[in-house]
Amino acid sequence: MRLKEIIQKTGLNKRTIHFYIEEHFLTPKTDPSNGYYIFSEDDVERLKMLQQLRRADFSIKDIHAILKHPTSAYIYIKKQMEKLQKEQELLTRKIGSLQRLYDKLPVFVSSEAFSDAVFCTDFPDSTVALPPDLDSDVNLISLYLWGPFLNGITMSEYQKYLWDKLQKETAKVPSGTLLTMKDYLYSLTAEQLDHELQLRTRHIEEIAMLTQETMPAYVRKACQWIADCSESDAFAMTWKQDYHTHTLPLTRLYDSDFNSLMTELSPRFSDYYRNIHLCCDQIYDWLLSDDGADIFSRLSEQLGGYMDLCALHHGEIAALFGTGIVN
Amino acid sequence: MRLKEIIQKTGLNKRTIHFYIEEHFLTPKTDPSNGYYIFSEDDVERLKMLQQLRRADFSIKDIHAILKHPTSAYIYIKKQMEKLQKEQELLTRKIGSLQRLYDKLPVFVSSEAFSDAVFCTDFPDSTVALPPDLDSDVNLISLYLWGPFLNGITMSEYQKYLWDKLQKETAKVPSGTLLTMKDYLYSLTAEQLDHELQLRTRHIEEIAMLTQETMPAYVRKACQWIADCSESDAFAMTWKQDYHTHTLPLTRLYDSDFNSLMTELSPRFSDYYRNIHLCCDQIYDWLLSDDGADIFSRLSEQLGGYMDLCALHHGEIAALFGTGIVN
Repeated sequence: MRLKEIIQKTGLNKRTIHFYIEEHFLTPKTDPSNGYYIFSEDDVERLKMLQQLRRADFSIKDIHAILKHPTSAYIYIKKQMEKLQKEQELLTRKIGSLQRLYDKLPVFVSSEAFSDAVFCTDFPDSTVALPPDLDSDVNLISLYLWGPFLNGITMSEYQKYLWDKLQKETAKVPSGTLLTMKDYLYSLTAEQLDHELQLRTRHIEEIAMLTQETMPAYVRKACQWIADCSESDAFAMTWKQDYHTHTLPLTRLYDSDFNSLMTELSPRFSDYYRNIHLCCDQIYDWLLSDDGADIFSRLSEQLGGYMDLCALHHGEIAALFGTGIVN
Repeated sequence: MRLKEIIQKTGLNKRTIHFYIEEHFLTPKTDPSNGYYIFSEDDVERLKMLQQLRRADFSIKDIHAILKHPTSAYIYIKKQMEKLQKEQELLTRKIGSLQRLYDKLPVFVSSEAFSDAVFCTDFPDSTVALPPDLDSDVNLISLYLWGPFLNGITMSEYQKYLWDKLQKETAKVPSGTLLTMKDYLYSLTAEQLDHELQLRTRHIEEIAMLTQETMPAYVRKACQWIADCSESDAFAMTWKQDYHTHTLPLTRLYDSDFNSLMTELSPRFSDYYRNIHLCCDQIYDWLLSDDGADIFSRLSEQLGGYMDLCALHHGEIAALFGTGIVN
């Protein structure tokens, strides 16, 4: 198809189409005889999708991020909704002010009457705080937490019911924990989020697939990793940086009582849950044995205040080796 | 006051203040010794007012128009409200689309899943029609129609009640007439509207103040004006142009049964109403007499189809000389 046809099909103008090509959203072939673009059906679909996303006011930068890292789409859509909701709230206030101004004017308006009415009317500045919408925050956090366990599952009605229940349970977690988690998610770039989700998915699969035969080698590898970490200043720095903003809320969320729900919802979770506990039990025993004593005291020194060393949670041990040893 | 103090008092930045000065919204004095601006209390008030109006998203052009022609403030505020309401409606639809898109995504989002969800979601283009809001249209039209009769009146509670009743009556006028009137008002510039309101106010006062002694001279003047008009192609053109968009709906509105309400509401109206009828009776008689026969037939030729010549309404006769002979 030629440009003219594309313009007709999409309703986009020439300039916009050229802009999208310059932005590498699509790379149509060119006719070697005259250099004109030849568009494929895929190009048309792509253009239509761009048009749709632009209608929802997504920035070009955000569209790039979403298309490159579609796993991050949830965050971008939610952020965009919140942005538009803020604009909407501001507009509501502006319209309210205009109505009050209108109502205050006398029948025949003089300069003085107009300025008096303006001064009696409060117009909003641009700072708008939205009322918290915990439900939708919880949904976003649930997707981040449990998504990697549900990858590839087509949910039955019963599973959808469990998923709703899981979110209701998640909503009971202290709101401070949830908001910290949300701030963390919002602080990630699409690339970072995508990378993290991919790593966690692989980590989860790896753990879920461990057998009695493969587990000892995995635990040795984890212990070695922890030993290396205990000597690394760089690791300590990263750990401390992420601890309160991410690691702690994440382990708190995972430590909550979702296990029976998740076991029913995802067979992968059930395998993961059993195996991660077996691994952590052994690592825990090792850390408290003579063999691990040096490592344990080095960790205490390095991460003091940033790890509950008295009652090491399985969650914190799991986070300690976490995605670091994903193959 | 110096610029620094002004910045503190208003919260505006230097660049914005300079811009407002360049736009001649204020003309602060300058210190001859160093050329620095010296701002008065009036300048501060002016800046605060500009800040308020900008917070309601008024354009610089609109602010100029309102401040120069405050009688037009109603139209500008109403137009601005409708503009913001349209933006708000569009935002509501965008947020709805985003929510539907969000709900359609699977737990773990692939590129395909994302584009499928986008294609199943309808995003709004920017054409938004607002549901009609007849009440506020009627209010605007009432202000335009009856405002000149109420100039300077501080309404008692009873008069406010009559004013509400008048608007309820106005709402009963066929909606086509009201919408044509609104379109006409929206088509005027602030200057045109201001000019028209000033002229009509003077015309009304002039008519209201006519006495048995002064009326004959006024009627002669009106007849002469009509005679001149009947020979003027330019007048015929303007009349025809305005007839369906303005003159006819206006006379229809004035011919409706608001007279008893307006008589109670405004003594000026009561005087005007009596005198304009006396004038028009005499002009009507003259047009149908031998003296006026030539004029009448020339008018019929010139304005045929643009004037109800069989049953000349007083309203149309009044419009014929209308504001043309205001002193």
